Amino acid sequence: MRAPDPLPPTPQQVAEATREAMARDDRASRLLGMVVEAIGPGTSTLSMTVREDMLNGHDICHGGFVTTLADSAFAFACNAYNEVTVAAGFDVNLLAAAHLGDRLSASAVEISRSGRTGLYDVTVVNQRGECIATFRGRSYAMKGKPLVEGLPAGKRFAGDRQHRT
Amino acid sequence: MRAPDPLPPTPQQVAEATREAMARDDRASRLLGMVVEAIGPGTSTLSMTVREDMLNGHDICHGGFVTTLADSAFAFACNAYNEVTVAAGFDVNLLAAAHLGDRLSASAVEISRSGRTGLYDVTVVNQRGECIATFRGRSYAMKGKPLVEGLPAGKRFAGDRQHRT
Amino acid sequence: MRAPDPLPPTPQQVAEATREAMARDDRASRLLGMVVEAIGPGTSTLSMTVREDMLNGHDICHGGFVTTLADSAFAFACNAYNEVTVAAGFDVNLLAAAHLGDRLSASAVEISRSGRTGLYDVTVVNQRGECIATFRGRSYAMKGKPLVEGLPAGKRFAGDRQHRT
Amino acid sequence: MRAPDPLPPTPQQVAEATREAMARDDRASRLLGMVVEAIGPGTSTLSMTVREDMLNGHDICHGGFVTTLADSAFAFACNAYNEVTVAAGFDVNLLAAAHLGDRLSASAVEISRSGRTGLYDVTVVNQRGECIATFRGRSYAMKGKPLVEGLPAGKRFAGDRQHRT
Repeated sequence: MRAPDPLPPTPQQVAEATREAMARDDRASRLLGMVVEAIGPGTSTLSMTVREDMLNGHDICHGGFVTTLADSAFAFACNAYNEVTVAAGFDVNLLAAAHLGDRLSASAVEISRSGRTGLYDVTVVNQRGECIATFRGRSYAMKGKPLVEGLPAGKRFAGDRQHRT
Repeated sequence: MRAPDPLPPTPQQVAEATREAMARDDRASRLLGMVVEAIGPGTSTLSMTVREDMLNGHDICHGGFVTTLADSAFAFACNAYNEVTVAAGFDVNLLAAAHLGDRLSASAVEISRSGRTGLYDVTVVNQRGECIATFRGRSYAMKGKPLVEGLPAGKRFAGDRQHRT
Repeated sequence: MRAPDPLPPTPQQVAEATREAMARDDRASRLLGMVVEAIGPGTSTLSMTVREDMLNGHDICHGGFVTTLADSAFAFACNAYNEVTVAAGFDVNLLAAAHLGDRLSASAVEISRSGRTGLYDVTVVNQRGECIATFRGRSYAMKGKPLVEGLPAGKRFAGDRQHRT
Repeated sequence: MRAPDPLPPTPQQVAEATREAMARDDRASRLLGMVVEAIGPGTSTLSMTVREDMLNGHDICHGGFVTTLADSAFAFACNAYNEVTVAAGFDVNLLAAAHLGDRLSASAVEISRSGRTGLYDVTVVNQRGECIATFRGRSYAMKGKPLVEGLPAGKRFAGDRQHRT
């Protein structure tokens, strides 16, 4: 008599496993002190505090670092289906300055995913909820290449809507 | 009898003075080890080497740091008229991966400048001249606010073409 | 004895007056058969049907016309404060093809407005609610220049949030 | 004794054949009166004159139509390798207004092409050579699907550089 098959992992469990794998090796996000606050299938929230060494010549947080935070949130969100996925590009609007000590939070949501390509919106806010930047990222998936071996990769799950409008 | 008036500074001299002012306080560019290789009115070239702590979970240089290099080149170029100018946004395409030890070079050129707004193209290449990323930046000038006091600010110089095509 | 002062127009009434002024002279939107379905302060919805003469060589609606619909929705939304406002640029993602006879609907919402510049998101869907395109537009206001004379221009109204996140 | 094999078509001959195929069915470009002035592998120039029915409520050429001209130039350029290729998206900056009677010319050049994706820059100028708009387009190729049957499709030719910098 054999044990019953275990239940397959849920999309949320897969997403959490990819977070571990991504975070373990992501030295870049660590350099900026980022924390992964939340993860889900196609979504994530990351935060970081603006440090002295992130300021530019105008004494505000370098827009490149605000973008790096958003890009990391994008990466965690689009890799959460356990299919190795890279950024093909993004469009960024810097709406307000971030200052020394500000706590920035970047939340990524999926707009569309179809074939190898996806579209994600990331919004960066400060500790007062003011919008610092918008980021719209274009992703490209390495079809069939899992991030974490032994887990379902890139699957569409029931209830997965192709386009959120 | 008084000494003759000194010649007014050339656009190139103004640009070099802004480079000093920008570089002195730009802790963010220093964190990534950037070097300003060249500066001119509306142009600049910056370089950096991909370090271990710039790699992401896929073991390639974080696209945010490639963007930060391009954004710094953009900032040096659009501030070179000695008028405080910030990035309003940019569109980035990541064309190839940058790896550990790669030497990246970002060159910025001005596409247009009119009123408070400007448009700049930055191309990032590696040590083999392969294009890693394109960056198109939108700038916004703080009219009449000089970066370096005592030098002409934001002036259009003879031969300054509004739009390069 | 004099009549009491009339109530000042509401933001919605101002928006509706700008729609009339915009639509009257907008020959371009008329060429494509666009209809203004809804207008509000910073928002609008426009629709159009894909005609035979809008198809490209691949027999689908030319992406430029999908973009023109989105750009018109953007224009109606950002001019609805009665301050002459033009498009500075936009980023477009074409997510699915639109076919002959499809009824397209473009809805614009304001993401931010500050000083002369604004940011608007437009989503284009077909008659089945499928997302055809996303459009993120950057606006530039001609400060103090009303679209309709005699009405408040560019005013911030109570409850007007600067950034929606 | 049989006749010698004919020489294979040159890239330029392939490009010219795709122009015929594209232009024959492109009703959208015809609606705006566009003319294909030049074609080559990865390049094209299209022109159009701003008509009364292309003006918007501000009495200037609708930015959507300027974009449509650029998008058509992009389409002719990226299909010139005889592989069916569609626009995935683009970033546009509108730099100056186009007026009634202006003759606009859009020139597309290839920035990169790799796998299924490509990047093209289009510049739109008026009859005085002033830059009206910049357009950076992202293409996506339907691998192995020729536009014109019987001609080489999507081939890389000798001397074809992957990235122009």
